[in-house]
Amino acid sequence: MHIASPYLLFIGDATDQLSIKMARGVADWRPELCIGEYAVSGCTVSTGIKQLNIAQGAQQGAKSFILGFANSGGILDKKWLPYILDAMDKGMDIVSGLHDKLSDFPEIVAKAEQTNQQLLDIRHPKAEFVTGTAVKRTGKRLLTVGTDCSVGKMYTSLSLEKSMKKHNIDVDFRATGQCGILIAGTGVAIDCVISDFLSGAAEALSPNNDSEHWDIIEGQGSLSHPAFAGVSLGLLHGSQPDALVICHDLNRSYMRGLPHSQFPSIETTIALNLQSAKLTNPKVKVVGITVNTSSVSVEEGQRICAQLSEQFSLPCVDPLRDGTDSIVATL
Amino acid sequence: MHIASPYLLFIGDATDQLSIKMARGVADWRPELCIGEYAVSGCTVSTGIKQLNIAQGAQQGAKSFILGFANSGGILDKKWLPYILDAMDKGMDIVSGLHDKLSDFPEIVAKAEQTNQQLLDIRHPKAEFVTGTAVKRTGKRLLTVGTDCSVGKMYTSLSLEKSMKKHNIDVDFRATGQCGILIAGTGVAIDCVISDFLSGAAEALSPNNDSEHWDIIEGQGSLSHPAFAGVSLGLLHGSQPDALVICHDLNRSYMRGLPHSQFPSIETTIALNLQSAKLTNPKVKVVGITVNTSSVSVEEGQRICAQLSEQFSLPCVDPLRDGTDSIVATL
Repeated sequence: MHIASPYLLFIGDATDQLSIKMARGVADWRPELCIGEYAVSGCTVSTGIKQLNIAQGAQQGAKSFILGFANSGGILDKKWLPYILDAMDKGMDIVSGLHDKLSDFPEIVAKAEQTNQQLLDIRHPKAEFVTGTAVKRTGKRLLTVGTDCSVGKMYTSLSLEKSMKKHNIDVDFRATGQCGILIAGTGVAIDCVISDFLSGAAEALSPNNDSEHWDIIEGQGSLSHPAFAGVSLGLLHGSQPDALVICHDLNRSYMRGLPHSQFPSIETTIALNLQSAKLTNPKVKVVGITVNTSSVSVEEGQRICAQLSEQFSLPCVDPLRDGTDSIVATL
Repeated sequence: MHIASPYLLFIGDATDQLSIKMARGVADWRPELCIGEYAVSGCTVSTGIKQLNIAQGAQQGAKSFILGFANSGGILDKKWLPYILDAMDKGMDIVSGLHDKLSDFPEIVAKAEQTNQQLLDIRHPKAEFVTGTAVKRTGKRLLTVGTDCSVGKMYTSLSLEKSMKKHNIDVDFRATGQCGILIAGTGVAIDCVISDFLSGAAEALSPNNDSEHWDIIEGQGSLSHPAFAGVSLGLLHGSQPDALVICHDLNRSYMRGLPHSQFPSIETTIALNLQSAKLTNPKVKVVGITVNTSSVSVEEGQRICAQLSEQFSLPCVDPLRDGTDSIVATL
């Protein structure tokens, strides 16, 4: 899969910043891929980039119309069909990270055939994977793993990629979720892969590479999350990481979505990930910790990171406030 | 999904006992569901049950025509289409555990519509699952786990079910692979579920039940298998087992299919499964070990089991040679 750029980010009539996570992620991390944002009447949020409608976007060369909003259930409301059909008429591919498939709407499929535009349901992998082989691959790999879901694994990965690029290290960000795929323009939504092919898909995502090349692989879930640990383990085994970065969020007392569950310590998270990762790479090391400290002041965040850094003898940073140079320096 | 019985087992022109594993499994464990076996010219193997052709099977009341053979790749050879169409004309549903879907053959779909017979692609779950909740369920659960794939988890599970029934324990065998599903008449091919729903599907497979009821859940893969550990972990977390039985095969030096991989010890397998299972059931216990000793004499097998039993202070048996009464006695 390859998503053609530049993108026109369609955020519909969204009124909640969280619901435009897809659009914000790509606007934050790949502004050069985004030609503009298109919001319709009623919309009260924005990614902060230039407003363009479909005709203007087309005129300025937009190649993909991104459905940059989400809702619980991942439903594609029929009211957006005219916009989607219009964008195809004006030469754009359609990209959706929703659960509902573009290809399940006959009007959209007919228009795609007529205009020869692509429909990219990035949450639904089309590639045929094979089962994992655990054969050692060339090149270096870093995987971000977490105490929980949604603790900043994607942002940490992108910050590491940015820091490595700044230091002229040959690096690729390997996306495993729909936001990351939109940012990378390619990738595999790993939790949408058939279970049998989990580690095989992870192997395919970071193939053999030059010996000094780094793949920064976006982690998913947590080995301590009862709903998603299987996904995390398959991704970990297939990734064969040389390096792990532990990602953590403040003020959580249970696993995301499960109020009756226990939250693991950072110690436990390190031990569990190292133990599991050694199955496919005995030389794996934890090289750093990142913490989302946005719920506290900058000073308090720095105090927390310094304390964790001393406790674990590892660099510890907030990837957004501090960047991740100190982690990259250890590699 | 529910598979109507009795079954007519179609083994085609198979010449290899391993290739009729599906048919043999159900003939061995549910002879009462099998009305006969249908083999065509060239076939040199058998499950040992009565030979019937399609007309005879229909006359004697067969409700399902089971594609009881397999091949690498799980291909459905077009030469079998006339047999499948004939069976539907004679009132049978079609059941396939192949990778190729019955529903992808237009001739088969047309005949199913015409005759109103069901097409059951048991390797491709049709149910809509949700993500796991890890909410504690009522009733008791035993999961078979293994040092590797194909070490006897299904046979151990069925032997435990048989022993429990003999002792008037309220029990259900919960199938997680296509052979098991054919035997149980229902179940979920867990490695064919979308990864996001792995533990949720496992939760759905063994729902709330009476407090003294046992679900015996067929394990899959191994936590030490680099290709399939994610599946094993999702199944383990969703199953919330109270009891684990460790299944092992003699004379393996690497994980099935991966000559460069390491084989785990039984100690490691016990430790890893207990540690992981505690996330959703802190009270989990290992209650026994089963060993496939078919590669050695009965006496040698008994000597090996006695030694392991002493080493781990657990009952240890070959489920086919010894049965599993000694494990059930500890529950």
